[in-house]
Amino acid sequence: MNPQNRQAKKLQRRKQQSKRSYAAARKPLWQPPRAATSLSIEEDPLAANYGNIPLLDLQSKVEADLKAWTKVGDLTHELKGKEVLIRGRAQTMRAVGKNMAFIVVREKGFTVQCVVTAQPDVVSKQMVKFAAGLSRESIVDVHGVVSVPSIAIKGTTQQVEIQVSKLYCVDKAMPTLPINIEDASRSEKEIEEALQAGEKLVRVNQDTRLNNRVLDIRTSANQGIFRIQCQVCNIFRQFLLSEDFIEIHTPKLIAGSSEGGSAVFKLDYKGQPACLAQSPQLHKQMAICGDFGRVFEIGPVFRAEDSYTHRHLCEFTGLDIELEIRQHYTEVMDIVDRLFVTMFDHLNNKCSKDLEAVGRQYPFEPLKYLRKTLRLKFEEGVQMLKEAGVEIDPYGDLNTESERKLGQLVLEKYGTEFYILHRYPLAVRPFYTMPCFDDPKYSNSFRCLYSR
Amino acid sequence: MNPQNRQAKKLQRRKQQSKRSYAAARKPLWQPPRAATSLSIEEDPLAANYGNIPLLDLQSKVEADLKAWTKVGDLTHELKGKEVLIRGRAQTMRAVGKNMAFIVVREKGFTVQCVVTAQPDVVSKQMVKFAAGLSRESIVDVHGVVSVPSIAIKGTTQQVEIQVSKLYCVDKAMPTLPINIEDASRSEKEIEEALQAGEKLVRVNQDTRLNNRVLDIRTSANQGIFRIQCQVCNIFRQFLLSEDFIEIHTPKLIAGSSEGGSAVFKLDYKGQPACLAQSPQLHKQMAICGDFGRVFEIGPVFRAEDSYTHRHLCEFTGLDIELEIRQHYTEVMDIVDRLFVTMFDHLNNKCSKDLEAVGRQYPFEPLKYLRKTLRLKFEEGVQMLKEAGVEIDPYGDLNTESERKLGQLVLEKYGTEFYILHRYPLAVRPFYTMPCFDDPKYSNSFRCLYSR
Repeated sequence: MNPQNRQAKKLQRRKQQSKRSYAAARKPLWQPPRAATSLSIEEDPLAANYGNIPLLDLQSKVEADLKAWTKVGDLTHELKGKEVLIRGRAQTMRAVGKNMAFIVVREKGFTVQCVVTAQPDVVSKQMVKFAAGLSRESIVDVHGVVSVPSIAIKGTTQQVEIQVSKLYCVDKAMPTLPINIEDASRSEKEIEEALQAGEKLVRVNQDTRLNNRVLDIRTSANQGIFRIQCQVCNIFRQFLLSEDFIEIHTPKLIAGSSEGGSAVFKLDYKGQPACLAQSPQLHKQMAICGDFGRVFEIGPVFRAEDSYTHRHLCEFTGLDIELEIRQHYTEVMDIVDRLFVTMFDHLNNKCSKDLEAVGRQYPFEPLKYLRKTLRLKFEEGVQMLKEAGVEIDPYGDLNTESERKLGQLVLEKYGTEFYILHRYPLAVRPFYTMPCFDDPKYSNSFRCLYSR
Repeated sequence: MNPQNRQAKKLQRRKQQSKRSYAAARKPLWQPPRAATSLSIEEDPLAANYGNIPLLDLQSKVEADLKAWTKVGDLTHELKGKEVLIRGRAQTMRAVGKNMAFIVVREKGFTVQCVVTAQPDVVSKQMVKFAAGLSRESIVDVHGVVSVPSIAIKGTTQQVEIQVSKLYCVDKAMPTLPINIEDASRSEKEIEEALQAGEKLVRVNQDTRLNNRVLDIRTSANQGIFRIQCQVCNIFRQFLLSEDFIEIHTPKLIAGSSEGGSAVFKLDYKGQPACLAQSPQLHKQMAICGDFGRVFEIGPVFRAEDSYTHRHLCEFTGLDIELEIRQHYTEVMDIVDRLFVTMFDHLNNKCSKDLEAVGRQYPFEPLKYLRKTLRLKFEEGVQMLKEAGVEIDPYGDLNTESERKLGQLVLEKYGTEFYILHRYPLAVRPFYTMPCFDDPKYSNSFRCLYSR
């Protein structure tokens, strides 16, 4: 029997079991089972308002219009008094006696408190018990009315509550998970403060996070990081497309190394030696020779680095641009300058919720940047460092320490954490860099620097 | 001496030579040399209007505003009588006696005919000679007035000419290149027709093209293909972002194979066995389990295929989407349906020039598609084939031949070359496909098919 048939049989069996337990086979879509087995066998006249939805009822059946789910992130004061339906994960459950339970429901990193209160003709005590007994990270459908509590809500992103009338578990999570999202969402500050108050909160370590990445990426901060990352690429692309660039996809499997300086991953390509591209540099340049004028690429870059610093990665997503220069290399700096300012602006304006989500767990100050990016000549940078008592080789490169120091000095003098350093010494630039016309010890090159 | 210093020295030498030959060192930017050495040594009072610009004059000097270059692709009747400056490649040169020369100048695949006519006080005979003697693919700056000839212009994309007043060579190409772009741009039809008329035109073979990719991608058709490819990704992304998807970048270096069925490239990852991702499938699914809801990725896919067909590639750019289903798998088909129609519309509307450029070399008919994509059940497809005399296993997959036949039948019956075939037999789908609720021999799955 092949796996598909086995799977089909298994489903068939489950279906029959489900028919026996729920007699729900002929019920219309979403009509819940009469009683949820996980609760109790005693008859509950309000059993239709809650329970586990069996797989059979979740399968694709009638092609109907999509129900009107409200996004948790859209739950605001404006919806006060409105009936809504939300779908999300049951992040934390808390019972208060037998008549009340709280569930924090989370969708895409946004959380809302749902209140299940026993009340005649709507919510039974069994339903409260069912709510309190949900396993963390189960997916639930919650029907209810939006209410605005008189005091500010701590611990959820949304400042409203939902007074629950119906509650269905769409997908039950395992009772014990290696990570609780609540724990994984905690900032160091919270942990420290609790410790000082004598309480020891769980700290989820990096290895546990990486070993359970599917759970860890559910935190509000990680959801925010991925959405910001998506927007970084989006605004990068949109800006460049509007400036007449075209997006290309250069080969990643190549015959030689792309650029000196970093180690390559080697592999066997049908009997021939090949390696993974360490940079799209040469292919981008070929695209320019091939008359594209202006190109960019967003794609993976592979470097078999042996350094373990926060600046070294074996695989990362590179954002690369290349353009022909018509008169002066400042044309490139102009593009890059406007590109970054556009990106910073866009993130501040369009990703404020995501930045907030990241900031709650990993506090940070907004980036200080100028409307027109500061352009500092390498010589000027060397001079600034010298005046501050730091002597460096004027024709060498900045090391991490002098770069940091220069960043500090620039911030003090110009009030920006982002700047362009140009006219680098020719000796420290790659072979294809043009020397400066007035002093061949320097080159028509630049780097963008963040001073943090 | 390190390579940078060597390079600097070399440039310095060239600069000095250039000073000696042209005495142009202190001239303002773009002031051309007094006489172009490639022409003749006799004094030409109009020498300032043409010549090779020495490297020294091309180096970044004064930061000035960009000159107003007109794009070749923008040269239309509306500019009649206007003075323009264009920069492009000298694709072909043709002298007509000593007083006239034609240059076809190409920029990003768009071509225009430039006419150099000897005339007092503007264009000397030496300038005509200089124009006719340019090496193909040299980059030139052409100043002139736009004119509209009384007869239609064959052989260029733009239907105007430029009456040249100044002509400078910015970068001289080698006198002989392995490919002439004119040859590489020819359609099979042209070659055949010429052959029948007794003329043998050059046909550039695939291996020559691939060995000289930088030249080959300069053809109008290839420029169009790359721009269309860029727009395919662009509209794909914009549509999905507007539908609440987020873009992710999944790892390409992974520990195991991503999905059965195709061979993997293996490599050594710092002493551990690793391989290149054959598909982002499992990572996309993890992203869904990780609460992203809807994700997509555009990135390289690696398959160590041993099949040599037009459907097998060892490395290609994959466009992948994944979304959670809320009620019915038709939700996925709805997205995909609208996605493709949006893409087809966009390409037809926004890339018409590029489609034309491709069509001139590789003629094709516009795609026939419906406003709402046809959805055919696998069973229905089998039935249509049966009625047409083709018997296939109703629970197996379509082979290339039956797929082609079905495409024909669909085109005849429904008038579309693009359709969705769904409810595939479960046995031929991967392990994660959901069986149909009413018949577990079929599955909640689909494929988009083009019938050509």
